[in-house]
Amino acid sequence: MVAVGFFSEVDDPEDWHRALRAALPEAEFRVAPELGDPAEIEAALVWKPPADFFAPMRRLKLVVNLGAGVDSLVGRDDLPPVPIARLNDPGMVQLMTSYVVFAVTRYARDIHHFERAQRRGVWEYRHPRALDRIKVGVLGLGELGGPAAAALAGMGYSVTGWSRSPKHIPGVRWEGSLDAVLAESEILVALVPLTPETRGLIGARELGLLPRGAKLVNACRGPVVDEAALLVALSDGTLEAATLDVFNQEPLPEGHPLWRMENVLITPHLASITVPESAARDVAESIRRVLRGEKPLHRVDPGRGY
Amino acid sequence: MVAVGFFSEVDDPEDWHRALRAALPEAEFRVAPELGDPAEIEAALVWKPPADFFAPMRRLKLVVNLGAGVDSLVGRDDLPPVPIARLNDPGMVQLMTSYVVFAVTRYARDIHHFERAQRRGVWEYRHPRALDRIKVGVLGLGELGGPAAAALAGMGYSVTGWSRSPKHIPGVRWEGSLDAVLAESEILVALVPLTPETRGLIGARELGLLPRGAKLVNACRGPVVDEAALLVALSDGTLEAATLDVFNQEPLPEGHPLWRMENVLITPHLASITVPESAARDVAESIRRVLRGEKPLHRVDPGRGY
Repeated sequence: MVAVGFFSEVDDPEDWHRALRAALPEAEFRVAPELGDPAEIEAALVWKPPADFFAPMRRLKLVVNLGAGVDSLVGRDDLPPVPIARLNDPGMVQLMTSYVVFAVTRYARDIHHFERAQRRGVWEYRHPRALDRIKVGVLGLGELGGPAAAALAGMGYSVTGWSRSPKHIPGVRWEGSLDAVLAESEILVALVPLTPETRGLIGARELGLLPRGAKLVNACRGPVVDEAALLVALSDGTLEAATLDVFNQEPLPEGHPLWRMENVLITPHLASITVPESAARDVAESIRRVLRGEKPLHRVDPGRGY
Repeated sequence: MVAVGFFSEVDDPEDWHRALRAALPEAEFRVAPELGDPAEIEAALVWKPPADFFAPMRRLKLVVNLGAGVDSLVGRDDLPPVPIARLNDPGMVQLMTSYVVFAVTRYARDIHHFERAQRRGVWEYRHPRALDRIKVGVLGLGELGGPAAAALAGMGYSVTGWSRSPKHIPGVRWEGSLDAVLAESEILVALVPLTPETRGLIGARELGLLPRGAKLVNACRGPVVDEAALLVALSDGTLEAATLDVFNQEPLPEGHPLWRMENVLITPHLASITVPESAARDVAESIRRVLRGEKPLHRVDPGRGY
């Protein structure tokens, strides 16, 4: 038997229990706060665990992060020096890709205009543009950004991708200069991990480089975009519209000015979530490996933050 | 020289003039009502031309339909027995696919719920479902329906396609029974051509076969769905929501009850339009062929209606 602790406010423990039982029958699945003796926990499956969550887990050998961003596990002082693994979850990739494809296509096909015309009860024709004339910039070409950029290119959009190191993705033009990507992107998609380098990556200066009336899709982490600069840009026409799944503070507080902006679409941080059935097999394998003293699959480098 | 007549209230004649000049320099492009002597017109590029439009064109050898549906060219008495060609336009396919992917994903990702929550200023989390658990039915697997069904399957949806004859599309399960497709489709996409057989294809009985709370996307022709039955289904919960690009009467008349339904998204018949640059080459080739007494490309069978 191996005791596996679970903490998440958004993932369903029952789904994970079922999926892990199928992949690792010897697991004893304990859901916080019912962790029994925390000193028995050898592997922890977590999403944004509270402070001191890990402190009493003296036999901990592995932390598995249930979401895409590991920023909530970096730099905390209750976490012993055990490996952190991210999930490799085809379902998570599909969800993020579907969200990005939805948000980009909504702008590319002028749906936000038709929504407004409908509220006025008016048939307002706009001739569609060929998709290859529509320039989409994708910031971040990792586990989620890469497949999203590839899907957009496959649909016919003109896609440029930005990442630290060159990436070869079919149909996607790689560009190493952030300013160059910004200058040409009428729809900008942020899919970078939150790290010290990407915090505030998109500020007033960067928003000002976008073509006038550009659209922003932020589906990674709120602090990647300077929220104060974003509010100004959405009000003064620098940005025509934005689709936001993430925010500085989540849930987005009641009465926050973003709630009332007609040119903003707000979703409650679910662009991409983990699907237990498709992720549990690798989690089981990682647990087996650390119990044998080996490295887990999909290990995260805390130094890089992803 | 060959005189080419042009009529469309939605397509840009300048775009077509430019595209056709590049592909067929010997064309003399005449835009209605400035057709000169209509008896000189040998090829007509049209979208929904008015009654008697073709009557004076005594040398007409070819009609090219500028949209996907040829229903407005079938059964009219001003049209001489010349071949009718449809466009083969990769841009048109891309546009339709993008529209369908947008509309299906908006429902699959619960965006219509988040739009409502946003109007109330409320963060209302809904856990996403894995895309392969979401059953999408596509009615019609032709020039537009086939690629749209393939794209949905490629994104991860569970897709069943219905067409008269079996079709093999990667990832798409073919089903010959309309009732069987309806019974399992939580999102139904109508992409059949309008023919005598498909007029009223989706009526009260068919809507009643859908799983309770299903969503409908109609991007083909209004009369394929019985509009009175649709209004009832949207009001009594048979349908949870609908995305409609086409209507019995277009533009959708002011004050029509659909305008005010919160669970309906209305777009002004532009899910798919022709992109001249990508279609003009085949049009030029078809004109050359009919001038040599040969058959045009992409000929439409008026008996079948597509």
